[in-house]
Amino acid sequence: MFDYTATYTDYYQLTMAQVYYYSGQKENRAVFDYFFRKLPFEGGYAVFAGLEDLLDTLQDFRFNERDLEFLKANGFRDEFIRYLAGFRFTGNIRASYEGDLIFPVRPVVQVEANIIEAQIIETLLLNILNFQTLIATKASRMRLAAGERKLVDFGLRRAQGPGGYYAARAAFLGGFDATSNVRAGRDYGIQVSGTMAHSFIENYEDELTAFSIYAEEHPDNCVLLVDTYDTLRSGLPNAVRTAKILEEKGYRLNSIRLDSGDLAYLARKSRELLDKAGLNYVRIAASNQLDEHIIKSLLDQHAPIDIFGVGTSLVTGHPDGALDGVYKLAFSNGLPRIKLSENPGKTTLPHRKQVYRILEEDNSFAGAEVVTMIGEQAPETMYHPFYPDRSFSLQNTGNEPLLHEMMVNGTRLSPTLSLHEIASFSREQLKRLPSEYKRFHNPHVYKIGLSSRLRSERDRLTEEFKK
Amino acid sequence: MFDYTATYTDYYQLTMAQVYYYSGQKENRAVFDYFFRKLPFEGGYAVFAGLEDLLDTLQDFRFNERDLEFLKANGFRDEFIRYLAGFRFTGNIRASYEGDLIFPVRPVVQVEANIIEAQIIETLLLNILNFQTLIATKASRMRLAAGERKLVDFGLRRAQGPGGYYAARAAFLGGFDATSNVRAGRDYGIQVSGTMAHSFIENYEDELTAFSIYAEEHPDNCVLLVDTYDTLRSGLPNAVRTAKILEEKGYRLNSIRLDSGDLAYLARKSRELLDKAGLNYVRIAASNQLDEHIIKSLLDQHAPIDIFGVGTSLVTGHPDGALDGVYKLAFSNGLPRIKLSENPGKTTLPHRKQVYRILEEDNSFAGAEVVTMIGEQAPETMYHPFYPDRSFSLQNTGNEPLLHEMMVNGTRLSPTLSLHEIASFSREQLKRLPSEYKRFHNPHVYKIGLSSRLRSERDRLTEEFKK
Repeated sequence: MFDYTATYTDYYQLTMAQVYYYSGQKENRAVFDYFFRKLPFEGGYAVFAGLEDLLDTLQDFRFNERDLEFLKANGFRDEFIRYLAGFRFTGNIRASYEGDLIFPVRPVVQVEANIIEAQIIETLLLNILNFQTLIATKASRMRLAAGERKLVDFGLRRAQGPGGYYAARAAFLGGFDATSNVRAGRDYGIQVSGTMAHSFIENYEDELTAFSIYAEEHPDNCVLLVDTYDTLRSGLPNAVRTAKILEEKGYRLNSIRLDSGDLAYLARKSRELLDKAGLNYVRIAASNQLDEHIIKSLLDQHAPIDIFGVGTSLVTGHPDGALDGVYKLAFSNGLPRIKLSENPGKTTLPHRKQVYRILEEDNSFAGAEVVTMIGEQAPETMYHPFYPDRSFSLQNTGNEPLLHEMMVNGTRLSPTLSLHEIASFSREQLKRLPSEYKRFHNPHVYKIGLSSRLRSERDRLTEEFKK
Repeated sequence: MFDYTATYTDYYQLTMAQVYYYSGQKENRAVFDYFFRKLPFEGGYAVFAGLEDLLDTLQDFRFNERDLEFLKANGFRDEFIRYLAGFRFTGNIRASYEGDLIFPVRPVVQVEANIIEAQIIETLLLNILNFQTLIATKASRMRLAAGERKLVDFGLRRAQGPGGYYAARAAFLGGFDATSNVRAGRDYGIQVSGTMAHSFIENYEDELTAFSIYAEEHPDNCVLLVDTYDTLRSGLPNAVRTAKILEEKGYRLNSIRLDSGDLAYLARKSRELLDKAGLNYVRIAASNQLDEHIIKSLLDQHAPIDIFGVGTSLVTGHPDGALDGVYKLAFSNGLPRIKLSENPGKTTLPHRKQVYRILEEDNSFAGAEVVTMIGEQAPETMYHPFYPDRSFSLQNTGNEPLLHEMMVNGTRLSPTLSLHEIASFSREQLKRLPSEYKRFHNPHVYKIGLSSRLRSERDRLTEEFKK
């Protein structure tokens, strides 16, 4: 874990906070929405991740002595610093369940607290949720491409510093099976995986010696990296010999790993050589610059690959690199608030809100969610958030509310969930999403609408500001 | 700081280490090279960053009780676990100075240690150096685009988790002036910056009230965000009024910030309005999805922007997201080592090595570096690393060695440098690089060559393996 303290924030949160503190806004109850505007990877959905880490961190999010000294040296005033010395988050958080599928525009998390607390935690919230959601979504896409095959995170060496640790968590949440990242395995209970590097082979006089010595030490979990010299002419024959030695001792070679070259061709040839040697139980692992599109292409070519090791593109969420999640004021000082924009699609939604997911009779997702004022039932009609003449009937369909109380007065309400529980929930939710939303190219657009009341409120406030 | 322990590594480092431990390789002295193959951002150079963090972390890189229990539960053997309990890095590190400019193929860091230690630290080394070098390089490009204007890192909210903390460090190293990241400011002595968000404006009944209340609390460092409602019709007039109130109290408005819309147009119009009001001292800050290309374009249009706030693209190193740095075995068990590849450009360089930078008479970079065996002087001719018939004369030019001892037997030799010292060194080095290497499009290619001896050694080993 990173040792988060409350200076894990943007400086402007503190300059604003000092203004609020001295101008009578300490008790101003504010509501902020966390949401994003654009689905990552041009996909049809996102996987919400990071909530448990956020709630855990918030419970201990304080300024320590060093933080306070630094702020004092930066000119913050004494009484305000004394206030920060006692700072803790005492607000409420309502949110989607971690692992649920989330979509643009509609609130995913709603924070209600005094405005100073709500601002100071903004940066932490965005930093944790934006990144883990990005990576869990990327992982989920790889899971869709890989079907039931095994997916292993190999990314730590190319990750954005300790981002790699949290990426391992998010990748598991999004559907990965294992990680090479020992520290993440230790802390999150993710299966760890890995056997040998090219350097291991090079360290010995020849490849067969290297394989044999490895197999002797790890007979029950032996994966041989076969591309150091020549995959088909050296690596495979030596792997077959090693497998035979293991068989004599009552063990089975686990798999071979391909890490370069034409993976589709090499996998097919390797499968042939292994099968011909009676080693049809030996699995084939592949790695090297994979992403969901390459995995899909390999399997479209019927490459007999059983295990995919994915690094850079997974843990950095390439090519997007970031989710555009934002945190916008919806209510303060007793009044609903909006932010206008020259781009109508960027006008925010006022008030405390609820979101209802519309369901088919079989409980699958109908492809629509409606944002309402809090306390409203799911309405019978929803309205397009930006085009006033478009509406959509929700009659005769089921629904479920999506924002749940997670923290009240700074105390967690929901039971702490293990990463395995969250991943399992996420997998079930993904099954409920029809396949047309899961396409990589031009996925079907999941509809987000507003209730009539919420729409009227937004339009009323917009008019008010225009005057 | 992340609480790095020695399980911040890939699992295969440990499975290999156990083999080495039980097969008599504990004292095998190995040499690994850290280098990269492709310059990030299609640029002409990279800025080496992360070394001080790496050396700091290595000094305390141990397995704690929890790590050891986890490894025991994963089936590692008792005696090996006892060995890990006493693990520390006791090897040598030679490296380029942090902040220096680095180029593909040639070693940037050379690690010499027993092979177990050298492998266990691999992932940490790659994780720290790849990321910080990526970000420092990105920052340096923005510095080139921005000239003497002020650059501020706004990225934490969109960063890859705690990657944002290290990104702030690397950004300063690469030429940024300040950061919004309070924690990075506290720990690295970077100037912190930031004043108000849109939510601050929205929280009040009108913009002028929000500006006035802010200015009253922060009269000596007031930056007004002017685009919440309408930049030119509301934000600017209200900023002018606020500046006049500040003038009456003997203060000066620091700047206004534009965060949306056409920044070139709005900056020009804002400058006109400010100047007309006699506020030519008020500076203009701009933010919103900036990168080096947009900064360059804005300044090519003569947009009168004095301060740029940059977020996502800086701290995630977009669009690359990762540097492809690798760590390859060069020597072990008394013998030079190479890794072959079907792609000749991926064959590695054997032996302990030195790198010499070729210099012009005025001490500027001549655009060439030669990799030699350690102990060699800079030769008079260097050879292309992959095309045997290309050579390049180095006669009558100066040179300087680039790999320096940083750690001997696990103890740091070089004085610990402050981030400010490193950033200042880096700035001086960048001045020594001719401008044709700094172009964003098709920069001149900096040449890397091999000495005759090193080339012969590599070719000899390649032939040996082909037999």
